[in-house]
Amino acid sequence: MTETKLPESELLDLATRALHGGGMREEDAAQTARVLVLADMFGVRTHGISRVAQYLGRVRVGGIDARAEVQVARMAPGVSMVDGRNGIGPLVGMKALEAAMQSAREVGIGAAFASGSNHFGPISPYSWLAAEEGFASMIGSNATTTIAPWGGSDARLGNSPLGFGVPGGDGAHFMLDMAMSVVARAKIRNALKAGQSIPDTWGTDKAGRPTTDPKAALDGFLQPIGGHKGYGLALVVDLFAGLLSNAAYLTHVKSWVDAPDEPQNLGHFFILIDTRRLGSAAWLVERMRDFADILHGSPAADPGKPVIVPGEIELRNMARQRAEGVRLDPAVLALLRQRAAAAG
Amino acid sequence: MTETKLPESELLDLATRALHGGGMREEDAAQTARVLVLADMFGVRTHGISRVAQYLGRVRVGGIDARAEVQVARMAPGVSMVDGRNGIGPLVGMKALEAAMQSAREVGIGAAFASGSNHFGPISPYSWLAAEEGFASMIGSNATTTIAPWGGSDARLGNSPLGFGVPGGDGAHFMLDMAMSVVARAKIRNALKAGQSIPDTWGTDKAGRPTTDPKAALDGFLQPIGGHKGYGLALVVDLFAGLLSNAAYLTHVKSWVDAPDEPQNLGHFFILIDTRRLGSAAWLVERMRDFADILHGSPAADPGKPVIVPGEIELRNMARQRAEGVRLDPAVLALLRQRAAAAG
Repeated sequence: MTETKLPESELLDLATRALHGGGMREEDAAQTARVLVLADMFGVRTHGISRVAQYLGRVRVGGIDARAEVQVARMAPGVSMVDGRNGIGPLVGMKALEAAMQSAREVGIGAAFASGSNHFGPISPYSWLAAEEGFASMIGSNATTTIAPWGGSDARLGNSPLGFGVPGGDGAHFMLDMAMSVVARAKIRNALKAGQSIPDTWGTDKAGRPTTDPKAALDGFLQPIGGHKGYGLALVVDLFAGLLSNAAYLTHVKSWVDAPDEPQNLGHFFILIDTRRLGSAAWLVERMRDFADILHGSPAADPGKPVIVPGEIELRNMARQRAEGVRLDPAVLALLRQRAAAAG
Repeated sequence: MTETKLPESELLDLATRALHGGGMREEDAAQTARVLVLADMFGVRTHGISRVAQYLGRVRVGGIDARAEVQVARMAPGVSMVDGRNGIGPLVGMKALEAAMQSAREVGIGAAFASGSNHFGPISPYSWLAAEEGFASMIGSNATTTIAPWGGSDARLGNSPLGFGVPGGDGAHFMLDMAMSVVARAKIRNALKAGQSIPDTWGTDKAGRPTTDPKAALDGFLQPIGGHKGYGLALVVDLFAGLLSNAAYLTHVKSWVDAPDEPQNLGHFFILIDTRRLGSAAWLVERMRDFADILHGSPAADPGKPVIVPGEIELRNMARQRAEGVRLDPAVLALLRQRAAAAG
């Protein structure tokens, strides 16, 4: 497939107009576009502007309300609850991020618990926006159920994403954005296509038993990292993102594939810490540089693959795409242009 | 080995007297004993009162200051920094827990970052104490370096523990307390003794290459859960517990085995959320019960092993030992008695 490139600002403008054309208010569309374009900048294209069509498809069937007015309630100086009113996920995410930032500015730490939301994109854009303002972050979302409880045999929890960020000097932020499964489903599908078996830690068959057969794993469930440990972590994310936020959790989360016209009521949590309350900017910059230097200093087990620190790949992608333009699938670009044109 | 049992209150009293005998002020000894006895109550005996001798051994060689006056500085309404002054770990942990609780009471969420600390026991006692007061918690500590960076070939990060808690009704709290390695070293040692090979996800040889040979793994490094994901999570714990707290981090953490007379300068973080700001007690109890019911409802892959929710084993151990007394290794008990007698 040939590829095309657009400068970041043009892509932002185009995505904003497409989302506005899909029914969002212009400023809401701009905030949503910001998250999705950052995902593309970081190279997380599966969660970037390619999602606009999917989001707007759900708007059309009534599964998401493009004009939702997200409500933010301050429960305490450090804690907000955000009701997304079934709005577009990244918009709810941005409102929650802002609420947590505001609390963190005031009292040093802030949390926002969001309910009534939808797929909010990847976590790294939020971590990056927080880090750019000097905030360390812990952010998570629940998700449609695709994982069985450890030792169980049906899907009762989501492959929930969890992310963290710590500001570094000159934009060299630490950013970790991970889901709870050992591998993504796509990797198992690739093994099946290639006729290869898979490690027995990737998935279980539909009876919940570990399997090396990619076909059986695709009919079964993804395994969480570290077995019972990843199961526990996935539950933690659902507890903070779903249960404490007053959103749906576990099997109460509706599948957007099976029920695209019903609200998912996903939940997210954002916990931000103002690092300037802990020490000077110079203190943090120096420690973060030293931290990365120590890790980079470990001799690589495979000389061709030096040790990296989480976030480095995303930041390198961003630097390159800022210089050269953002790589885009022409089909995705054509769809965006069509949507933007419809907006007039 | 035969075992003996003591009622919780007697064990608390005995451990307090032993720690007091080792040089701690009486109230500090009582707080430390509380953490360690809770560990034993939960069945985490490797991190319970059996550690008293180890802690006091380090006090004797000057590696820990039993009479340290832990300093708590409120940096913002929601954030404290705690300087453990090289005191006994669980004492520093308790002071940090209290500081974070106080902030959470006032502004809904509170963080405490501790430096100048030592091994602070397992995390579940802190999670439990927080949950008993209605706080959800995220707690972590860094540790001596035993893990290689992902793709690296020497030990540069610790097998850092990370824990979470959410209050449930009737004491049925969710509690997850995990380290970042797939398995503990002991499990690899057992495989070696049994002459068995190990899965290639447990450890690497000393060149950083995954191995199925337990001997090579013991000479090498533990692997983190989910490979690069667990590597990232271990870094997150060190960033929040060590780097942001102004403690040592990564290779700056001194080994208490190699340098027992030098301060380790370990760090911890405590983030507590007052769940009463999010909804009523009845609301939370109902949701937590439903959450557990959904998980328990998944048919077990192995009929003999029903699905459990993290924390259930520990709470069951506690209930049993409250009724029957706390199980103790007679050698550990004898040592405690000797220390307590020395205290006069």
